[in-house]
Amino acid sequence: MQKSPSASSLGPGGLDLAQAFFKPIQNCDPPSSTKRHTKISVIGVGNVGMAIAQTILTQDLADELALVDAKSDKLRGEMLDLQHAAAFLPRTKINASVDYSVTAGSDLCIVTAGARQNPGESRLNLLQRNVALFSNIIPPLAKYSPDSILLIVSNPVDVLTYVSWKLSGFPSNRVIGSGTNLDSSRFRFLIADHLDVNAQDVQAFIVGEHGDSSVALWSSISIGGVPVLSFLKNQQIAYEKQTLENIHKAVVESAYEVISLKGYTSWAIGYSVANLARSLLRDQRKIHPVSVLAKGFYGIDGGEVFLSLPAQLGRGGVLGVTNIHLTDEEVQRLRKSAETILEVQSQLGL
Amino acid sequence: MQKSPSASSLGPGGLDLAQAFFKPIQNCDPPSSTKRHTKISVIGVGNVGMAIAQTILTQDLADELALVDAKSDKLRGEMLDLQHAAAFLPRTKINASVDYSVTAGSDLCIVTAGARQNPGESRLNLLQRNVALFSNIIPPLAKYSPDSILLIVSNPVDVLTYVSWKLSGFPSNRVIGSGTNLDSSRFRFLIADHLDVNAQDVQAFIVGEHGDSSVALWSSISIGGVPVLSFLKNQQIAYEKQTLENIHKAVVESAYEVISLKGYTSWAIGYSVANLARSLLRDQRKIHPVSVLAKGFYGIDGGEVFLSLPAQLGRGGVLGVTNIHLTDEEVQRLRKSAETILEVQSQLGL
Amino acid sequence: MQKSPSASSLGPGGLDLAQAFFKPIQNCDPPSSTKRHTKISVIGVGNVGMAIAQTILTQDLADELALVDAKSDKLRGEMLDLQHAAAFLPRTKINASVDYSVTAGSDLCIVTAGARQNPGESRLNLLQRNVALFSNIIPPLAKYSPDSILLIVSNPVDVLTYVSWKLSGFPSNRVIGSGTNLDSSRFRFLIADHLDVNAQDVQAFIVGEHGDSSVALWSSISIGGVPVLSFLKNQQIAYEKQTLENIHKAVVESAYEVISLKGYTSWAIGYSVANLARSLLRDQRKIHPVSVLAKGFYGIDGGEVFLSLPAQLGRGGVLGVTNIHLTDEEVQRLRKSAETILEVQSQLGL
Amino acid sequence: MQKSPSASSLGPGGLDLAQAFFKPIQNCDPPSSTKRHTKISVIGVGNVGMAIAQTILTQDLADELALVDAKSDKLRGEMLDLQHAAAFLPRTKINASVDYSVTAGSDLCIVTAGARQNPGESRLNLLQRNVALFSNIIPPLAKYSPDSILLIVSNPVDVLTYVSWKLSGFPSNRVIGSGTNLDSSRFRFLIADHLDVNAQDVQAFIVGEHGDSSVALWSSISIGGVPVLSFLKNQQIAYEKQTLENIHKAVVESAYEVISLKGYTSWAIGYSVANLARSLLRDQRKIHPVSVLAKGFYGIDGGEVFLSLPAQLGRGGVLGVTNIHLTDEEVQRLRKSAETILEVQSQLGL
Repeated sequence: MQKSPSASSLGPGGLDLAQAFFKPIQNCDPPSSTKRHTKISVIGVGNVGMAIAQTILTQDLADELALVDAKSDKLRGEMLDLQHAAAFLPRTKINASVDYSVTAGSDLCIVTAGARQNPGESRLNLLQRNVALFSNIIPPLAKYSPDSILLIVSNPVDVLTYVSWKLSGFPSNRVIGSGTNLDSSRFRFLIADHLDVNAQDVQAFIVGEHGDSSVALWSSISIGGVPVLSFLKNQQIAYEKQTLENIHKAVVESAYEVISLKGYTSWAIGYSVANLARSLLRDQRKIHPVSVLAKGFYGIDGGEVFLSLPAQLGRGGVLGVTNIHLTDEEVQRLRKSAETILEVQSQLGL
Repeated sequence: MQKSPSASSLGPGGLDLAQAFFKPIQNCDPPSSTKRHTKISVIGVGNVGMAIAQTILTQDLADELALVDAKSDKLRGEMLDLQHAAAFLPRTKINASVDYSVTAGSDLCIVTAGARQNPGESRLNLLQRNVALFSNIIPPLAKYSPDSILLIVSNPVDVLTYVSWKLSGFPSNRVIGSGTNLDSSRFRFLIADHLDVNAQDVQAFIVGEHGDSSVALWSSISIGGVPVLSFLKNQQIAYEKQTLENIHKAVVESAYEVISLKGYTSWAIGYSVANLARSLLRDQRKIHPVSVLAKGFYGIDGGEVFLSLPAQLGRGGVLGVTNIHLTDEEVQRLRKSAETILEVQSQLGL
Repeated sequence: MQKSPSASSLGPGGLDLAQAFFKPIQNCDPPSSTKRHTKISVIGVGNVGMAIAQTILTQDLADELALVDAKSDKLRGEMLDLQHAAAFLPRTKINASVDYSVTAGSDLCIVTAGARQNPGESRLNLLQRNVALFSNIIPPLAKYSPDSILLIVSNPVDVLTYVSWKLSGFPSNRVIGSGTNLDSSRFRFLIADHLDVNAQDVQAFIVGEHGDSSVALWSSISIGGVPVLSFLKNQQIAYEKQTLENIHKAVVESAYEVISLKGYTSWAIGYSVANLARSLLRDQRKIHPVSVLAKGFYGIDGGEVFLSLPAQLGRGGVLGVTNIHLTDEEVQRLRKSAETILEVQSQLGL
Repeated sequence: MQKSPSASSLGPGGLDLAQAFFKPIQNCDPPSSTKRHTKISVIGVGNVGMAIAQTILTQDLADELALVDAKSDKLRGEMLDLQHAAAFLPRTKINASVDYSVTAGSDLCIVTAGARQNPGESRLNLLQRNVALFSNIIPPLAKYSPDSILLIVSNPVDVLTYVSWKLSGFPSNRVIGSGTNLDSSRFRFLIADHLDVNAQDVQAFIVGEHGDSSVALWSSISIGGVPVLSFLKNQQIAYEKQTLENIHKAVVESAYEVISLKGYTSWAIGYSVANLARSLLRDQRKIHPVSVLAKGFYGIDGGEVFLSLPAQLGRGGVLGVTNIHLTDEEVQRLRKSAETILEVQSQLGL
């Protein structure tokens, strides 16, 4: 941990005491400089970044945590606030700096930084400012942690994941966007709440573009292993397509609802990203709907575009994409999203 | 979980589907109304309340969580944000309401609500406003959960714990202030950081009044079971009393430092209170420095005053206070704090 | 914890020290006799019982654990061996006795005791001896913990769960057999191993009679939410029914294989039962294939018989049975199992 | 995971299905051969080895677990029994083989294998057989995992840790014996049980030779940070040295007691070693009493001998030894143990 000024101002007695307190054994190694532990860096310490950092800390997913932000006061305050909990948690080294060198040797870099929309600013202009911001973030991350996985959370997540892939020069399996992982969780919660079951027993995916044009995969919904659509059919229960669409609509609206009520979203995205971090770093080989290079899937051939698809994640990043069956309508919607994003990307001049 | 409007607007199909999906077995109990699970209520969903609620959720300490706040929009936003993470967590029922009936049957009520100081307002005036606030909080909590434990986090914590005890009519073992539990954690972190050891291996207590006049118990500091003061003495290492006082000073200042840097404290108090919740509800019989009715200890006989002392906590609340040896100076400082607090309390007219 | 002889032989100094070390606070409750924590009893401390007890302890599922066995030496040895790990675990009270009064007030009683087959003994004779054994186990459990849930692990599990239901007089929702929960886990592992995915991403149920005549529900298999059979169909991948049957056969044989290799099974059944204990006691409302009163399901109307069906489990025990669609062949196999078990039960004279 | 015969016998369909189910993304890395996860090997799958392996699995301390034993049937049975629990646990790769190549790339190798005493066999003869056994175990471990930490559990642990150090050629910081870590836990349990406190609040060390001649450090005992001896003195409570010695005697006898009652010890040593594994692999920098190269400490200068001392453990193995103050009597007892062990070692001809 970076010696905090408060700690270092305690005088040179600290070092003397440490040297007196512990003695080395004979015939031992010189202190190793080999990196052998798990390190996660979080870029941006706003509400989202800190909810992610704190959840990672509580769930003990890393041996070292590095925070980076441009606002040095806020950054140091957040670092100290986490450090003060050391007695209640397994030991994790926590560093923070405005300088990217603090991220050196990360296994995973999570980017939550982003510009906010100015009044009257166009979406494209905002995006261009975010691309400019990312051009100051991604290259130093890639330089200090050339073997790391990049996990992009900032919005618009699909375009910024593409931008990060281009700026990093990393292979595509090591650049991932949090995409519709949280949308899918909200979907699972709404279904579970409806039926009073455990949300972990609900399998349901939302894929495609993160946001209003996301695609709910109705045929993939199952509860405790029972596919819901064929259950309804077998039970001869009539259901209205409108009801299903209402659930999807509720998912899409729920982010806006939380923002209108509390001003931002934080906890759910924090748990969602910590969940991805675990699958990646502990090589869980689990399937998550996240934004990956979608070129070549479902006839998306027009260019390099990132969209959320059910991807298997492990220590190597994206291990593969589940080859699920989509209806023609679902494929059309995916392709349309891809075209819209490609159109936007073509204006960025990357 | 309270049906959210979004969920209930999905139409009556939800109930039908649930009824079709599960069938009851024969010869079974009628649905039990007996409360058999663990319920925690958090009053106040500001930064502190939400850091506590989220840590309790991540650490799976309760089967049901109820949130209360006067601001209904913020409250609903925070509830939804936690609920949306259901797929990533063990199932916990999460409710929220401006009405205290939502807390009924709690095992533990954690109070974080508090008035903020107005410009130019005297401390006493602020306190009187907080007492007025608590007179609207504590009686309904006590009414709806007559067997619960009250854990007070709002500041000034020692006086407000006394106020809560009076307003609740609860026996003293079931009214506790978070007190110096966090101060002690900061103390342990600073020592651990100094020596590069695990903070969990550092035993060190700060007791007395939460805040500037807290008392550090130097003789209780040990590292991995090695008492530090006698170690220094045995090793004939000279140490300056000033150095030790500097560490304590750094602890006292660290709360102010975090507030000046990020505007408030949240994470560390969240972990600290979740740690207390665990000792209480899981009957851990662990020793924590928390604010308890201190009358009769260390010659504090002038009146009913709450101060932090090392107390053993379990399912019954405070099980006892560790009968540690204090130096004469330490006793004097404790008594002085007690007198100051009693003086303040006498002005409250309770 | 029962004072161990070794501890109590330390002399009366212990009590004096405890009294000197902690002092009560004023105005506190008398020590409460109200049971407020979670208690699990395990009957039988053989390999299976101890794997369950140890997993429950490691996963911190109970505040109190009681062990009962007829062999007092073995019982005390196992209790001490668990107690000696106290410093490495959250605090759990651990008791053990040959007397069932130690189980008083349990929330969950797990029965693993069972007679072993003598050379040349008929299955019916063995079962009759087990029924005699259970008539000494179940009534005292029901007497000392009238509100508890009974979870039967001993084999033949379906018949012995029925026997326990009859002997206890409990409503059917509070008598459950571990049934095919473990078979289903083996099924999920074999499929996951085949595809190199996380077994937690595989949904697959084996239902019916625990053992050779269990029924694999092929249509319920999905991986990461993708139904496998329709996936194969959509991908126009031919699959042989024989291949699927081989996987089921491997599941059935795997218990025999482990027994032939190491002499017994222990770890997987330990995890399986701890998993059920968690869903029950923490009110998880998850769906598990366990042995429940199956009368009235799938045309099983001939009598009271317990078979494994996908049941939703929570604090009230069995909350309902998932109304899944079975093929005609699957229904026939279930009914045949029911008839065989009923035939056996008719010979028991209960 | 090693494809089990049962799995591979499912036919070539498995591979086809996997290939159909997942498709690679474009522009991705070739599958990486870089080892990036945490691997633990356990040598010997008897009661102790399996209690360790199972606890490591439950506590999710490794991404890969390798088991080695000479008995291939027992070994395969234990591997399958753990694998069958996959659906209940985070994903961990589990391999087993009689061939040490399965341990390649381990971060930690835990050795529990050991010869049993034959009737009438002298201790020295038994030890010589164990040295012969270790000469077949340690060199292949060192060859396949040259950067690993060796953790020796087999008895007599101090001599066999020395033997492992010599046979491995490893620096001394990477060769550790489990030593008195478990004795100290039993000590803490007995004190905690006596005072009805949480054993995690009791600091107490037993050091020196594992077994009858171990040394209890009375001055290091503290409860919740309160040093017990000075507490008693300050409270003017008379205590008999005999009482303290009785507690230590109870610790020494407790291992024999468990063995006489259940035939062996397993659970507590399992938790104890998992606890060490966690401190080492997650770089916890915690202090544990374990067997380390003690030459140069407390005047032990006669030769290279391993004894338990309070050592700080982290990713580099032994980071240092706490420089605690011992009484003259304690130092004498340590030196006497050292001489006895050196005398034994001199007869081994290493």
